Amino acid sequence: MHIDILTLFPDMFTGVFQSSILQKALENNKFTYNLVNFRDYTEDKHHKVDDYPYGGGAGMVLTPQPIFDAVKAQTAKTNTKPRIILMCPQGETYTQEKAEELAQEDHLLIICGHYEGYDERIREHLVTDEISIGDYVLTGGELGAMVVIDSVARLLPGVLGNKQSATEDSFSTGLLEHPHYTRPANFRGMKVPEVLLSGHHEKIATWRREQSLKRTCERRPDLLKDVPLTDADKQFLNKIINK
Amino acid sequence: MHIDILTLFPDMFTGVFQSSILQKALENNKFTYNLVNFRDYTEDKHHKVDDYPYGGGAGMVLTPQPIFDAVKAQTAKTNTKPRIILMCPQGETYTQEKAEELAQEDHLLIICGHYEGYDERIREHLVTDEISIGDYVLTGGELGAMVVIDSVARLLPGVLGNKQSATEDSFSTGLLEHPHYTRPANFRGMKVPEVLLSGHHEKIATWRREQSLKRTCERRPDLLKDVPLTDADKQFLNKIINK
Repeated sequence: MHIDILTLFPDMFTGVFQSSILQKALENNKFTYNLVNFRDYTEDKHHKVDDYPYGGGAGMVLTPQPIFDAVKAQTAKTNTKPRIILMCPQGETYTQEKAEELAQEDHLLIICGHYEGYDERIREHLVTDEISIGDYVLTGGELGAMVVIDSVARLLPGVLGNKQSATEDSFSTGLLEHPHYTRPANFRGMKVPEVLLSGHHEKIATWRREQSLKRTCERRPDLLKDVPLTDADKQFLNKIINK
Repeated sequence: MHIDILTLFPDMFTGVFQSSILQKALENNKFTYNLVNFRDYTEDKHHKVDDYPYGGGAGMVLTPQPIFDAVKAQTAKTNTKPRIILMCPQGETYTQEKAEELAQEDHLLIICGHYEGYDERIREHLVTDEISIGDYVLTGGELGAMVVIDSVARLLPGVLGNKQSATEDSFSTGLLEHPHYTRPANFRGMKVPEVLLSGHHEKIATWRREQSLKRTCERRPDLLKDVPLTDADKQFLNKIINK
């Protein structure tokens, strides 16, 4: 996979690409990336990339020309038809399902605005996807782009070791994870639940399933509607709801 | 405001703290931060910070000792009672409302796990808040911490200039933003809507409100329930719903 990132702040990405999974994935050629400062593509003699909004109002708007031309230059290089993703608060809310979809692509191109709005023609005539990582206001699209890249890169074949892949499976139940405990069994008076020390695999499995159900029910009941529930699950949920 | 960040990958934060708004806010002493590698606090002779989960299963679990002691050392330094925030998929979904709440605090301490689960005793006996930035799987809590810091820092008094503050106000309507356009009026055949060139302020205001309503209705109808709607708004929404 190749990822182009169009941004006015390419330096923001340095630390993230040099650490952890992303660094390993890059070293092992699981993906390549290219940071493009779209200011380099402006035809404005003062190197501007924004201008006042038509119709008045506060805030500046990113002009179409530098972004259209920066995209064109990248796609001409690779001769591919990438997914062109605009990071913006008006986009579809990002989910794991979307990460899995994007992980199937050969080429992503991610556009990050900063402070400002995008000229609507970018949205209408250039991009294939608009993504928001959540309902909060960020200074720019850069952190959102890092979130997309991290979540997609870890799904690429061979990026995660077996251990982590297995951990990931626990998300695929659609429930929040059950509590985890490790040594010591007694940490400053705080103890690990007996059942986990019992060695009784079936009881442990039941306890974990029930804790997952309980936590999801308490914290994110909205997730329950998409989870296939067994009769035992339903019985347990009824018990905690009606207690 | 002071922000402590507990992480095994402090270098991930470099680029983000050296760019844009966060850099300016730091230069102007709007907040201070401290990156703490909690591995420095482990009492394990091999410097381990994780161990196998009780009850079996794949994946490692962060042990309580290094994180408890790293938190204790930071709070002893500042002699304050910080909000202690755990970045984790099981946390409450982060929102702008939460950012506004955290922006009122003097001291935040953010704990970032990586790959692994946290020992449940950290969750139960140490933290005050658990935050998830969205329903997708990331390699660690670091990107989430950056999202929290960026969204909070820009709300601190004096961090944003007037222009950006005003832009922010447009989010406070609870609707998605209307389309923006800037020069040129005709970009390679793609034109700016006539109304925005008309100079007729009232018509422009109506067009923008209607576009906001339309976009919200099409993309995020879930947001509409929290927005105070005028009679004109309702009429317009009825028109697009029933067309």
